[in-house]
Amino acid sequence: MIRLKSEVVLPQPYLLFLGDTTEPGYAKTAFGLRDWAGDRCLGEYACDGASVTTGLPFLTPEEAAASGAEALVIGVANAGGFIPPGWIPALLRAMEAGLDLVGGMHARLRDIEPLREAAQRLGRRLIDVREPPAGIPVASGRRRSGKRLLTVGTDCALGKKYTALALAREFTSRGVDATFRATGQTGILIAGGGIPMDAVVADFAAGAAEMLTPDADPAHWDVIEGQGSLFHPAYAGVSLSLLHGSQPDVIVVCHEPGRDATLGYPDYSLPGIQDTIDLTLALGRRTQPNIRCAGVSLNTARMDAASAERLIETEAGRLGCPVADPLRGGPALERLVDACLA
Amino acid sequence: MIRLKSEVVLPQPYLLFLGDTTEPGYAKTAFGLRDWAGDRCLGEYACDGASVTTGLPFLTPEEAAASGAEALVIGVANAGGFIPPGWIPALLRAMEAGLDLVGGMHARLRDIEPLREAAQRLGRRLIDVREPPAGIPVASGRRRSGKRLLTVGTDCALGKKYTALALAREFTSRGVDATFRATGQTGILIAGGGIPMDAVVADFAAGAAEMLTPDADPAHWDVIEGQGSLFHPAYAGVSLSLLHGSQPDVIVVCHEPGRDATLGYPDYSLPGIQDTIDLTLALGRRTQPNIRCAGVSLNTARMDAASAERLIETEAGRLGCPVADPLRGGPALERLVDACLA
Repeated sequence: MIRLKSEVVLPQPYLLFLGDTTEPGYAKTAFGLRDWAGDRCLGEYACDGASVTTGLPFLTPEEAAASGAEALVIGVANAGGFIPPGWIPALLRAMEAGLDLVGGMHARLRDIEPLREAAQRLGRRLIDVREPPAGIPVASGRRRSGKRLLTVGTDCALGKKYTALALAREFTSRGVDATFRATGQTGILIAGGGIPMDAVVADFAAGAAEMLTPDADPAHWDVIEGQGSLFHPAYAGVSLSLLHGSQPDVIVVCHEPGRDATLGYPDYSLPGIQDTIDLTLALGRRTQPNIRCAGVSLNTARMDAASAERLIETEAGRLGCPVADPLRGGPALERLVDACLA
Repeated sequence: MIRLKSEVVLPQPYLLFLGDTTEPGYAKTAFGLRDWAGDRCLGEYACDGASVTTGLPFLTPEEAAASGAEALVIGVANAGGFIPPGWIPALLRAMEAGLDLVGGMHARLRDIEPLREAAQRLGRRLIDVREPPAGIPVASGRRRSGKRLLTVGTDCALGKKYTALALAREFTSRGVDATFRATGQTGILIAGGGIPMDAVVADFAAGAAEMLTPDADPAHWDVIEGQGSLFHPAYAGVSLSLLHGSQPDVIVVCHEPGRDATLGYPDYSLPGIQDTIDLTLALGRRTQPNIRCAGVSLNTARMDAASAERLIETEAGRLGCPVADPLRGGPALERLVDACLA
């Protein structure tokens, strides 16, 4: 499997919590854990009103605890990163049932009085994976040894993490020494380590990306989970800090066909793939003059196999570079991996 | 004078502290206070080894206190934003003499044990102006009423704050309703309010810029202090967040003639002025489609008047837009202000 850095030891297996979420785009943590740490996820739990499901069995906290679960993981996010009051009873019930809580939102679990009180009373742990490590430096801009690949996107929540995980797995299966580098809460939950880029103070964000991808063997690849989009009206600064600090040799641009507007920002149309390649290379050259685009990753999860294959072929012709859906595999993925390692 | 927002009441007048600084670029807080709040600065104080001076009289903390000073302001920064151990004795002496401490660095005064202990013992205040306000939202991307001008730069520490202050003063002197919006510690010390952009968590940085420049009368101008540079290997993400969140109608590009490399990053050559205009407009258009560049501000402080005037004229011809050094005034500045308000 993928070589992962393990700085954090989290209580496992998990029960995934879906809140009252009706928008699948906000449940990417739960989907990511199902797909990449499925052997450590016993089931899902949600409030009344939730319509999103991971497909895992629905378990009450009591059932999950009886099956061996050690923690309830908050598997959904919302735009503000807070925990709505309506979720509190479910979280308290999980603690009463014997589960620790693991969260990755901006709001810290221990800052919520009823949760802190219950944790103390019951002897449960409140674990926030979105807390950056101490001692992050200002970026130095110094070039580092080893190879780096960064996934970038036309928007949030469309496959940058999955693409990085899949490419790291493909690299490893070819005998290439590769490390998946997590930059968001789900990736950290999957990898067991990383830096939550979006929680770092802005002045240190590029420095955090440098810290995450240190000097390495010249043949080693860091495969870095991208964040946000250079075109995003709220998060572009995070994306640029990550691009500058990670100094990628190679980028792979991620896109979801059919998405026309920025998630949660209907007035902001999505940039084109070629525009995203061009802007990323133009900005990335500042800290990595040899940056190149190896190809494009399309998230075709909502398409049937034949349509996806046709689109992948059409886009490869139009853009003049390898295009693949890494989760579908096949020769298209082989060509994308060839181009990454070329 | 300039209409300033006053959310913070700081103890004044000040004694300016210069640490052991030998690089004038790191003393911009002290210079800013001398130039824009000079009536509230009684003098300067420094450790042995400092070579930078504001030109204000050197006063010991005891002399300053006897003259009515209420606070020692740390008027220098360094790349890491920390307080070197060598400064502590001077800071303790100031507190012993009766002064509060005001700081704007990343390291918080109250996190330094000897300072906290002395403050408690002596009844002094430790005031950190670099603490962002609570409740900063994620950026909405929504367009707001009123006009906005943002100063941007080819680098840090070359005149973005001074340009914004000077333009706000010129706007006001023409009867235009204008507010200087501070985004860094010195600007906040001068203005008495603002948001320290570089201390905001990265995900909320664009939201902070939106919060700083809210809906206003259609004829009102926010004149916003820029931060960093879109080409800076450590701080470009901050600059992009500020650009996207402030949605400026107008930018003014700031540059220091003769500076060839990024301050503190000798391997990073400075971008050209035209490159900076082009990139800022290209990226700024994402949240403000009507963004335009009104002109260029040159920091000619190290040049004689005749050379500065010649350069300003040459650059205006080369770039095809108004160019001025706002601190020299004259017809060039009038033309730049005309273009801003056009």
